Amino acid sequence: MIDTERLLRSIRDLAALGQDQAGGNTRLAYTPPDTEARCWLLDQLAHSGFSVMVDALGDIFALEPGALPDASPLLSGSHIDTVPQGGKYDGALGVLVALEAIRSIMQADPYAGQRHPIALLVTGTEESSRFNLSCMASRLLTGDLDPAVIDSACDADGVTIREALAGAGLPVERLAELRRTPGWFREFIEVHIDQSFDLERAGVPLGVVTGIAAPVRLRVVLEGLAEHSGATPMPPRRDALAGAAEVILAVEHAARSRAERGAVGTVGVINAEPGSINTIPGRVTLGVDLRAAEAALLAELEQEVTQAVYEVASRRALTASIETLSRAVPVTIPEERLTRLEAACEATGAGSIRLVSRAAHDTMYLSQHGPVAMLFVRNPAGISHNPAEAARDEDIVLSARVLAACLLDSAHRP
Amino acid sequence: MIDTERLLRSIRDLAALGQDQAGGNTRLAYTPPDTEARCWLLDQLAHSGFSVMVDALGDIFALEPGALPDASPLLSGSHIDTVPQGGKYDGALGVLVALEAIRSIMQADPYAGQRHPIALLVTGTEESSRFNLSCMASRLLTGDLDPAVIDSACDADGVTIREALAGAGLPVERLAELRRTPGWFREFIEVHIDQSFDLERAGVPLGVVTGIAAPVRLRVVLEGLAEHSGATPMPPRRDALAGAAEVILAVEHAARSRAERGAVGTVGVINAEPGSINTIPGRVTLGVDLRAAEAALLAELEQEVTQAVYEVASRRALTASIETLSRAVPVTIPEERLTRLEAACEATGAGSIRLVSRAAHDTMYLSQHGPVAMLFVRNPAGISHNPAEAARDEDIVLSARVLAACLLDSAHRP
Repeated sequence: MIDTERLLRSIRDLAALGQDQAGGNTRLAYTPPDTEARCWLLDQLAHSGFSVMVDALGDIFALEPGALPDASPLLSGSHIDTVPQGGKYDGALGVLVALEAIRSIMQADPYAGQRHPIALLVTGTEESSRFNLSCMASRLLTGDLDPAVIDSACDADGVTIREALAGAGLPVERLAELRRTPGWFREFIEVHIDQSFDLERAGVPLGVVTGIAAPVRLRVVLEGLAEHSGATPMPPRRDALAGAAEVILAVEHAARSRAERGAVGTVGVINAEPGSINTIPGRVTLGVDLRAAEAALLAELEQEVTQAVYEVASRRALTASIETLSRAVPVTIPEERLTRLEAACEATGAGSIRLVSRAAHDTMYLSQHGPVAMLFVRNPAGISHNPAEAARDEDIVLSARVLAACLLDSAHRP
Repeated sequence: MIDTERLLRSIRDLAALGQDQAGGNTRLAYTPPDTEARCWLLDQLAHSGFSVMVDALGDIFALEPGALPDASPLLSGSHIDTVPQGGKYDGALGVLVALEAIRSIMQADPYAGQRHPIALLVTGTEESSRFNLSCMASRLLTGDLDPAVIDSACDADGVTIREALAGAGLPVERLAELRRTPGWFREFIEVHIDQSFDLERAGVPLGVVTGIAAPVRLRVVLEGLAEHSGATPMPPRRDALAGAAEVILAVEHAARSRAERGAVGTVGVINAEPGSINTIPGRVTLGVDLRAAEAALLAELEQEVTQAVYEVASRRALTASIETLSRAVPVTIPEERLTRLEAACEATGAGSIRLVSRAAHDTMYLSQHGPVAMLFVRNPAGISHNPAEAARDEDIVLSARVLAACLLDSAHRP
């Protein structure tokens, strides 16, 4: 069913847009290369007969021909904006595999009212690179994000989101109509490259995502006493940085001991004051990022880290405070969805394993409005958001076959 | 012998100069309050009959009457400049106790050629607060510091040292004559408040300093891989900050396990890059300060830290580099000097213990030009460089008696 040549050519064509000097793709949201890519995609959709709607955020809804605009379709897609010096698969793969799967279904089983309609969703921006807001479009669509952000958030040059949208030729006068109501789609499925070596190591082309890890972000502040590094003897010191070092290792330990269940924990930000080589640090601030794909596991992780902070502070006579910067809810994909995806993999002859998505995706927010699923494609480079991110042609084709089979199966369910 | 009233009054009088709003003393080197204090001191010396010489740095050499200017005298003293919001004892106590001890000797045993002469030394600036150069005067006197610094180093307002000296009315045309040759003094002894609780805890008024800790300062850089904090699973991570946390604790452990011998170790500076809450730190820089009063102990400390850095780096697949930022040599006071100081304490009825000076003092640099010793005075506040620094009147008087006894004893040795 899948037109292999058409699919692989579409990946090459999109990758040619927004090429940067590092050999990667730089299509920051609403910049000219991103707009050029959106126009290219709209052109593809128009030539294939889709009914296309573009909203004020540049979100594209492309419904297969014949379906009524108010139908609640099966949705698949992803995003085409990139991080600076990104690669050609993150986001783009999910869009182009969905496009090919739907095109192939349109040819093999054209919509005639006997099954549910199918649509492509391309969110206007998913990457946080420009406005420091990850999954901005899907969060605005689902009401997870306050629309006031459109006038308050700026990029590094001070351009607001509204100005950026207007600059990209998008219908900003329709911003008030963005928010959808739950049920506007029957199911959403996103194909994405694996962002780790999990599938490569397992030697299978596809991964059935059991859950999407959500981050809890904490700001931990430890306060001790800033004293002379020479004159203050060791035992009575109240060194906030030595305490912070224990917290950093406690975060690592809490996540490592739950690594098999997909937990991760990172201290990415540290600031020690006064920051002088001859003064014991009196105050240290840490930015902690904890993630797990199950709410219970995430809670366990957070509890262990919290306990460690207060235990270290108490033992070292430091004062500690923990502030929650953000708290997202992990998504768990129901067993029935996993079984259906696995059956589609098996029917297509594609090996698969179950795994979690440690990174967030639009799917995480869209899950608030309907059932979701994700399919990962093996990535021999083991990284994403990098020009080196990779996927083998044969794996990409397999993912399109599995996606088409899934969509068709769902389309015929009552 | 000691005129208790005169000694305590001199401390009150000097503390009245450069009083700040915090209730402390702020006499930054070569500022008007510091110059005022120097003039007050020169006035005291002139009225007591000293032969006084002031060099281009404001260093005061005050020789007891009758001695020849080219004699190699017994020296005692300290400094009168302070940190911002310092107290009335750091530096000042060593100057005023020496002044009183010499005045009492001048009355009890006036110089007549049968013993070595005695002189007061007040260094022009010891605190690093203004020009970020600690012990600047003693380092220029002994040739430890390149005199080019006089035109290259500036204070926070961009005023060079030369400009500051000229502004304080000092004879900058004689800057070339600063440097002395070893042997210009027979012995130097500095009285100073304890900068810790060591004497207060031991319940004794005086401390015989066995050595002066010198800092070795290292810049440690660990490099790993900056990756997505969500997508990168725990085991293969190369987290430079988690490695740095182990190094911070290794520095603390190396110093703690040698704390009884006076070792201290501090990481006062940390910088983690890229410093984003959703990125694993790929590069961390640490500023490490290690101190010990014995060269062998300092070497041991440095070796343990160095080994820990490379062990951590190797185990975590990080690359490590260690750069020496500065390396001073600790001073060890010979046993014979300690015994003589202890005998003077005993003869005066003053309890004493041996201890190390963890902070640097002019004595550290003057030791390059002749034998040195230090006597600490109990400090009930346990801190210095602070308006709260303290010393009991009776302890101060005891220190002056011990110093006078020591100077007199040395003056009569062949």
